[in-house]
Amino acid sequence: MTTKKTLKRIIDVAAGREKADLAIINANVVDVFNHSIIKNAAVLVANGVIAGVRTEGELCADQIIDAKGEYVMPGFINGHVHIESSHLCPEMFASAVVPHGTTTVIADPHEICNVCGVEGLDYFYKATENIPLSVFFMVPSCVPATPFEHAGAVLGAKEIEKCINLDRVLGLGELMNYVGTSLGDDEILDKIMVANKAGKPIDGHSPNIHGETLDAYVAAGPFTDHECATPEELRERTSRGMYVLLRQGSACHDTERLAKGVDDYNARLCMFCTDDRQPNSIYKEGDIDNNIRLGVKGGINEITAIQIATINAATAHHLTDRGAIAPGKRADIVIAPSLEYPLPSKVIINGKLVAENGKYLEEVKPYIPKSVSGKVNIGDFSKDKLKLKINGNKARVIGVIPGSVVTKNTIESVCTDNDGYFMYSPDKDVAKIAVIERHNGLGNIGVGLIGGYGIKKGAIALSIAHDSHNFITVGVSDDEMYLAVKELERIGGGIAVVQNGKVIASLKHEIAGLLSAELNVKQMMEELDKIHKLAIDKLGVSKDVDPLMTLCFMALPVIPELKITDMGLFDVSAFSFTSVDV
Amino acid sequence: MTTKKTLKRIIDVAAGREKADLAIINANVVDVFNHSIIKNAAVLVANGVIAGVRTEGELCADQIIDAKGEYVMPGFINGHVHIESSHLCPEMFASAVVPHGTTTVIADPHEICNVCGVEGLDYFYKATENIPLSVFFMVPSCVPATPFEHAGAVLGAKEIEKCINLDRVLGLGELMNYVGTSLGDDEILDKIMVANKAGKPIDGHSPNIHGETLDAYVAAGPFTDHECATPEELRERTSRGMYVLLRQGSACHDTERLAKGVDDYNARLCMFCTDDRQPNSIYKEGDIDNNIRLGVKGGINEITAIQIATINAATAHHLTDRGAIAPGKRADIVIAPSLEYPLPSKVIINGKLVAENGKYLEEVKPYIPKSVSGKVNIGDFSKDKLKLKINGNKARVIGVIPGSVVTKNTIESVCTDNDGYFMYSPDKDVAKIAVIERHNGLGNIGVGLIGGYGIKKGAIALSIAHDSHNFITVGVSDDEMYLAVKELERIGGGIAVVQNGKVIASLKHEIAGLLSAELNVKQMMEELDKIHKLAIDKLGVSKDVDPLMTLCFMALPVIPELKITDMGLFDVSAFSFTSVDV
Repeated sequence: MTTKKTLKRIIDVAAGREKADLAIINANVVDVFNHSIIKNAAVLVANGVIAGVRTEGELCADQIIDAKGEYVMPGFINGHVHIESSHLCPEMFASAVVPHGTTTVIADPHEICNVCGVEGLDYFYKATENIPLSVFFMVPSCVPATPFEHAGAVLGAKEIEKCINLDRVLGLGELMNYVGTSLGDDEILDKIMVANKAGKPIDGHSPNIHGETLDAYVAAGPFTDHECATPEELRERTSRGMYVLLRQGSACHDTERLAKGVDDYNARLCMFCTDDRQPNSIYKEGDIDNNIRLGVKGGINEITAIQIATINAATAHHLTDRGAIAPGKRADIVIAPSLEYPLPSKVIINGKLVAENGKYLEEVKPYIPKSVSGKVNIGDFSKDKLKLKINGNKARVIGVIPGSVVTKNTIESVCTDNDGYFMYSPDKDVAKIAVIERHNGLGNIGVGLIGGYGIKKGAIALSIAHDSHNFITVGVSDDEMYLAVKELERIGGGIAVVQNGKVIASLKHEIAGLLSAELNVKQMMEELDKIHKLAIDKLGVSKDVDPLMTLCFMALPVIPELKITDMGLFDVSAFSFTSVDV
Repeated sequence: MTTKKTLKRIIDVAAGREKADLAIINANVVDVFNHSIIKNAAVLVANGVIAGVRTEGELCADQIIDAKGEYVMPGFINGHVHIESSHLCPEMFASAVVPHGTTTVIADPHEICNVCGVEGLDYFYKATENIPLSVFFMVPSCVPATPFEHAGAVLGAKEIEKCINLDRVLGLGELMNYVGTSLGDDEILDKIMVANKAGKPIDGHSPNIHGETLDAYVAAGPFTDHECATPEELRERTSRGMYVLLRQGSACHDTERLAKGVDDYNARLCMFCTDDRQPNSIYKEGDIDNNIRLGVKGGINEITAIQIATINAATAHHLTDRGAIAPGKRADIVIAPSLEYPLPSKVIINGKLVAENGKYLEEVKPYIPKSVSGKVNIGDFSKDKLKLKINGNKARVIGVIPGSVVTKNTIESVCTDNDGYFMYSPDKDVAKIAVIERHNGLGNIGVGLIGGYGIKKGAIALSIAHDSHNFITVGVSDDEMYLAVKELERIGGGIAVVQNGKVIASLKHEIAGLLSAELNVKQMMEELDKIHKLAIDKLGVSKDVDPLMTLCFMALPVIPELKITDMGLFDVSAFSFTSVDV
């Protein structure tokens, strides 16, 4: 909180009685309230706070930044993001998005809490205490995501209550179980009551629900939706007072389509978000600046798009100290030559220049507490556990659909060895897939088959597998799968690729098996690209699928039709476990 | 807070699994988010909360209200009101405004706190605990209003800190000392820091300030302004992120004029308020329904006007539970045949029908604690104290300007008796005026002269005199002024009129000398009308001035040019005390 002395100084600078710390001159200031441009103005900053916008009179400041006629607007706010999707620790993530103008994010640390529980949130909280990017949190509401898998922790109402009142915790994270929420599921209501008691809001996640079911969901509490897919759904949600997040993730590209449903009236209920965004997308396309570009492309007025990226998200989350270039607001400022694609020339946070022409100017010093490293405990894992007995010559196989995280529940003829165990055959695109519990050494393993992935040699293993993030491995031989898993264990989680009985790539994600603290966004993108190339060129994975992302979603038992967890093969349509045998 | 069980039931009603308590059918529902009308719909209510809006399907409800094609909209929110101006206790005030569709008010108990201190707020808080009208509070920030008078109490930062965190206290009341605020006055900053620490907002009051001074004021903290007078000022304020209240008081008629500055963009920063509204205005013109009418008359789109009256105020004050007809919001509902002048046919609060065709359906049971009654202590007041010695035959006289609360600082020739004391002369419109400290028996009295008021006979005395509410009396003889004051003392405050040495009217305001708990709005209007008539017809007060309101503002030493307090005659332009002698 600003001290009285500081407040006094800001008032004095605003009144022109004291010299400002910084003046941004020759600025075309975006007035997000009157929806207009204040031309040829100067923005005065004192103690990290905007003191005023001047169009006349003399200026007195310690530092001058010449905007050279560029637009000067508030820093962008990402209304909903899982930082973990960037593979980067929060400090590195900041270094990737801040140069794109993102100055505030509302993060849902769903993935790291699935691995580390409350300590995952605690780590993110501390890691983001002293970085330029403002990071707020929603406490994940779905840990574990389902009862059909073992996560690293359970976040029940009690655990949520322990952290909901933290300063930078804005509320309860997305209620993904929208079916259960609309049904008034008891455990979900307990969590909702915790948020209500704290007077904090609840994020929604309500894909493809309508009418009465949507009413029930909204009545339960969620006030946002980032799963909205069509202009009609957008209007259906804003009509109910829900804030709709126009999402631009790596996989989900909603912004341009949803833009058609935005008008001058319901725009105030719109925000932008990225949800899940890979290093490749961040590096090549940007962050919220990219949402703005696509929103404008979709038909949103460019100043409205800036409102959506700034004041709307601030208003939605009661972040009254930011979101505008106005007296008393934080000096989180983007200077950019264009409004419709505001790639910043300069980014100022809290009054300090922190990025310039795409370059992050701050030092990155990751904080890595013990509580989130070495989160790999696969218990009594052995090669034998990968064996898969097949009765007969047909089996139930997870059928990969290229470009989708949905799978088919297929029956394929398969080969077995003399003892009746599954054996990879080069003439059939069916390989073995296994999920190995890695949090508490339970020794749990689910073994199944995957078709359409294309792998012809070796094995791949990952410790990133939504939402419980157990180890997931695919391969053509038990030996190589075993080796890939053991390599993952050795490096403390990450990605391992094995070919011809040897580890040919190994990418450490030493934080919770999810994040790297060593690589920046460009380096991470390049490493992942290398692994993609190896998977396709050396192991023969189909060019039509993303070798890693496809696996990441094979263990998520809420997306149809057939998935696999550490507890076995799961028929999502029937909402129950099933068997490989048919 | 809604219990878990209740929340479950609301969800079930929303989903159509359970019967609603109430269905409002044949409704044209105002969608304040999409800025549209949902035609021929039904609104379902469960446990005082809106469960959903249906346009198809079967309905199941215990009670049906047929809207007969009328508009169904959220209850109106008055963004800033001094309840005390109605002369009514809060319960009676509610009975006056609820039939006009006002379901929530944000009250600044500035007047009663000037008399009773924190106990005034405490009284209002308790009195409004169980009435249909939702009453929220801003803690008065200017008690006393100036150091040039004696109020009944002092609300310093310490006292404010004691009540700022109460549930229904939304923040700190209007910072009327805008000059001091822009200068960063130390005591004001202390109060601001209390609000900042509590994370609560601060109401503004910033008439006629611009540019750097306005920047300094906004940077200090205030986020609203209800003193905005022109469309240009409105845009200047919204540009800085201030919420502007379009006011329709009894004296200040700003709504229609300000409407010209409202467009589709800055409308979201507009609210309606009444500030100070007399019984006469409330009874004859209404409350926020009247602001809507005048806003539309001034050019605001009618749905936008409804937004301004509902969701905008709710959003501004983070009242996320109201302001819209949407699932999960409080069932505070207005049914009215017209949007541009929404005089309600029915008003529902918390799911219950509380007013119909102008009639309030709830019982009024005023709560009157000891702490706010008998607040009259004039100490050793005697007739002699009213004597006014004049040196020479000229004197400084408060010059009344008809229709204004501003006065002139005039010099008039006056008559004196043989001992040199002022003596009323029928051929000159100059009478005696006195302010008598009435809170702590200090024995303070300020005696001066008033011209242009027109009084020719008798005397009037009031215990309503902004902002300290000492006794104020005007008369042509010390005897009659004394009698009027003694009558006020006898009735515990209110209004007394004396003619020919006799009390001819006496209107009790037994609560703090400011409010009556016995009369409703119509009765109070009629009583005040009677007194007005007597003052003009019997005492000869000028028809051009409001006999009571004029006196109410004679003791307010922040409005130019010449005023009088219990400490003496005050030259507002020089910001110092002055003398009757010239």
